[in-house]
Amino acid sequence: MSEVLRDSFENYFPKIEKNIKDAAFISIDTEFSCLFSNNDSKSSLFDTAEQRYLKQKDNISEALLVQFGLTAFIFDRENNVYQSHSYCFYLFPHTFGSNDQRFKCQASSLEFLCHHKFDFNKMVYNGISFLNDEQDKRAEEELRDGDLLRSVERALSHEDEESVQAMCSQVALWLAGGLPEAASEKTIFLEVPKSSQSAQCIAYVTHHELRRRFISIWTIPEEGNIRVLKVSPTERAMMEKNHTHEDELQNAVLLSLRGFTRIFRLLVQSKKPIIAHNCILDLMIMHKQFYCSLPKSYQDFKNNIHSLFPIVYDTKYMSSEFRKKVTRADCWSNNTLPTLYNYFNLGRGFNLVSYSPQIKSDDYGKDGVPKFHDAGWDAYCAGYCFIRMAHFFGVHELGRVNAARPFTSTEHLALTAHLANRVNIIRGNLTHIVLDGLDPPSHRPEIIVVKRRDGKAIDALQLTESLSKHGSLDVKMVSNKLALVAASTKGQVLDLCRDYYKHPEYAVVKYNMIQHDPFIWTASLFSLVMCATLSGIFIYRFIKA
Amino acid sequence: MSEVLRDSFENYFPKIEKNIKDAAFISIDTEFSCLFSNNDSKSSLFDTAEQRYLKQKDNISEALLVQFGLTAFIFDRENNVYQSHSYCFYLFPHTFGSNDQRFKCQASSLEFLCHHKFDFNKMVYNGISFLNDEQDKRAEEELRDGDLLRSVERALSHEDEESVQAMCSQVALWLAGGLPEAASEKTIFLEVPKSSQSAQCIAYVTHHELRRRFISIWTIPEEGNIRVLKVSPTERAMMEKNHTHEDELQNAVLLSLRGFTRIFRLLVQSKKPIIAHNCILDLMIMHKQFYCSLPKSYQDFKNNIHSLFPIVYDTKYMSSEFRKKVTRADCWSNNTLPTLYNYFNLGRGFNLVSYSPQIKSDDYGKDGVPKFHDAGWDAYCAGYCFIRMAHFFGVHELGRVNAARPFTSTEHLALTAHLANRVNIIRGNLTHIVLDGLDPPSHRPEIIVVKRRDGKAIDALQLTESLSKHGSLDVKMVSNKLALVAASTKGQVLDLCRDYYKHPEYAVVKYNMIQHDPFIWTASLFSLVMCATLSGIFIYRFIKA
Repeated sequence: MSEVLRDSFENYFPKIEKNIKDAAFISIDTEFSCLFSNNDSKSSLFDTAEQRYLKQKDNISEALLVQFGLTAFIFDRENNVYQSHSYCFYLFPHTFGSNDQRFKCQASSLEFLCHHKFDFNKMVYNGISFLNDEQDKRAEEELRDGDLLRSVERALSHEDEESVQAMCSQVALWLAGGLPEAASEKTIFLEVPKSSQSAQCIAYVTHHELRRRFISIWTIPEEGNIRVLKVSPTERAMMEKNHTHEDELQNAVLLSLRGFTRIFRLLVQSKKPIIAHNCILDLMIMHKQFYCSLPKSYQDFKNNIHSLFPIVYDTKYMSSEFRKKVTRADCWSNNTLPTLYNYFNLGRGFNLVSYSPQIKSDDYGKDGVPKFHDAGWDAYCAGYCFIRMAHFFGVHELGRVNAARPFTSTEHLALTAHLANRVNIIRGNLTHIVLDGLDPPSHRPEIIVVKRRDGKAIDALQLTESLSKHGSLDVKMVSNKLALVAASTKGQVLDLCRDYYKHPEYAVVKYNMIQHDPFIWTASLFSLVMCATLSGIFIYRFIKA
Repeated sequence: MSEVLRDSFENYFPKIEKNIKDAAFISIDTEFSCLFSNNDSKSSLFDTAEQRYLKQKDNISEALLVQFGLTAFIFDRENNVYQSHSYCFYLFPHTFGSNDQRFKCQASSLEFLCHHKFDFNKMVYNGISFLNDEQDKRAEEELRDGDLLRSVERALSHEDEESVQAMCSQVALWLAGGLPEAASEKTIFLEVPKSSQSAQCIAYVTHHELRRRFISIWTIPEEGNIRVLKVSPTERAMMEKNHTHEDELQNAVLLSLRGFTRIFRLLVQSKKPIIAHNCILDLMIMHKQFYCSLPKSYQDFKNNIHSLFPIVYDTKYMSSEFRKKVTRADCWSNNTLPTLYNYFNLGRGFNLVSYSPQIKSDDYGKDGVPKFHDAGWDAYCAGYCFIRMAHFFGVHELGRVNAARPFTSTEHLALTAHLANRVNIIRGNLTHIVLDGLDPPSHRPEIIVVKRRDGKAIDALQLTESLSKHGSLDVKMVSNKLALVAASTKGQVLDLCRDYYKHPEYAVVKYNMIQHDPFIWTASLFSLVMCATLSGIFIYRFIKA
């Protein structure tokens, strides 16, 4: 696993580019600075896909993707081996021109990162820049119009300004014959300080500042540094007129500002399948941070993601399908990524089917310690679980006899094509969404209607507590006397109805029973009209069902 | 200088408390996560005090005070020495119950902190908690009602949950006779893990969890740890009924959550004079973070600050007054804190008057390297400059002959009383505000009115550029054909009027000349009505002037 920071990004870039090109598929993971923009925007079992999208859009509108994990899996057919290469990128939005981003941090999100040993200094001091298309366009315009140069000059830090000044002084000295070793030379070479926050920005400013101050020179970019030439007035005028090297200078600045977005664009161009675990938020924040602001329409979001990444596998969704195919004893306790990984790497999952390929990591786990919630490691784990599950699904698809042989990576993908572009939804009114088609109808159990037997107002907190022994439920008040309860499983609904059948305080009934019970029906009629008005589509679906 | 972090806070607290009690005055400084909430909220020379307050209130509404510097200056009359004790606190809002704060970071603010070697890991991993009065009240209520306990349980991290479980298992083992060395004992002692994010929170949860699980025991807090006693059913019932130790437990949690707010309250209670450099934003963020949300009314803000801190000295304001009393040659180039400090510590300022007291720092600069923009060092510098200026003003007040002796700290304060509670305003329509009275009238030069000679629309950007050679100016468009220009000095206005007297494009006139020039008057009449409407009070002041 390689940790990629601003100062090592350029060195890694060619290797990452090649890995993406060679990969059968690529797994990813992200870490966030903020998950919930406020305390009222938590997920609920009542949420439709669209409602959830809008909630999450609001939640992450100011969040920062602080760490991006990427693992390229390259298939070696001869040896039935997937060789993986993992990278963990730290990101930070660098200032430049009018680009001075604000982002929100949530105390609990940073504490979560702390628990997993996240290095905040690496992020701020050495995080890689990025631009989405809107910011990219603005930076390009500002560069072209010279605005960027003006605001860069204003925004230079004291140290950076000193660097620029020092280079100008050196040239002044040289022109005045004060540098004995270079006095007779026609050129001088200036090294731009590499320790600085923004070497490309300093180089750019220095080129322009030198040309402005000294009429008898021209400057040429040389691998991020500056070559100064003595030129005649005619040569100078010519270079001035042709904007010699200006494109090259501007491109260097743009490339440095784009930073990680260049990796994102490689992923998009490659059209390689993307693997991630429980990835709706990852896809949303990538859209916002590297592509463009999230659209208002949920359908537009789905279309955009599908055109960026035509094949996406969510290992959380796949694991739900996997679960249906194995006995309870053979399965895991929960489908979080660490549990899944341990299941397939060490537990029962390892030997479920034969000829499952070998998976080699470049150097992750050299110290033998898995580091969950480090984006690089989590990306690797998602890819690892994908391969194990894809092989299992493949064997099931072909039948054990036909499948008693290694598969190619193409087969792994082809045999799981029906699982692609399905993304898991936690705690919503549907279990997953479909990126390239219609979302499935809700499979959640019926809604339960609750009122007090004495007809008095319901205390929502008290009701929630009273219900809490039945596990994870969501309560929605439609009036002060009528509550709706959403459960996550049909078992919960059965238990609940049985338990509350003769409850002294609350009368509990399934939504579709209301039509058959004249007492409850009459009592609730007024409230239900309100309820229908308030809950819109969701109620509409239930009335149709 | 002492760096105070969460894990050392309790150890330092008694010493800081004593220093504050003994101090003649206390200097402070703060560092921010965000200065401007968006790109349009910069300061302008047009801003009235109230407009500026509202702008800044919006700017810092979601900012975090990440570092607080505090220096207590204790006067030793016998030796004419101020002994200083400096503390630099890192702050971070810890989650607890419903308290899960969000805060905004601005890329350029974090880059600024980077330039000054700020340690972001210290902040997030080991920053001290704080609560303002509103959060404090809520935490107290949640503790009392048991809500805090419920949400703490839900919010426990995996590691913390394991700590709680481990302690419960130990007690279960002990009760079952499985701890040979303690089997016959009537009590057992549990050490709460200190490395955790929130030891007090874990202790609190563990006490309640143990009592819930085991009916034959009671738990007693013992210096943050837990003493478990075997009790009879009668004893248990009694303790249950009396809520034995519950107050003590809840107080420990509250104290830990309050964290730095306890220092803030010591400052408030002490009523000691507060010294800071250019401190309007410091006062505002302290109000928000440790006292309560900033009020909508500027006057309420002034009243609140005055009742919290009856005596505030702003060394930036003092330095402007100081400048009026010395020749230009004897003065500094600018009144930023580093320049001022060097002026008084090494430069011309050092020997301006005699008997200026000696100023000793506890151990700052042991390595001889001043660290500007570290809040602890900046607090020390502000206090240092205050003493030098206070002594200088004192000598001027009494006359050189009468003042040829050391002053007491009481004299230093008394002789500068006329400078107290004046806080500097940068780039506004007034130079300072008065915390305990009416703000002064604007001393800014007259506003300049600009229109194009050809009567066409003005390009604001072009005008700003054209004016930029006259230094720092602000342009405000009142219509597309009429601009107002605010300058910071009268010299600028003179230069500008002279330069533009025969300008081919722009007609420029001082605001009060409009009445005397019928052409401009007529042409601008309509626009000025708009302008008056738009600019409200500020125009009103000029018409009155």
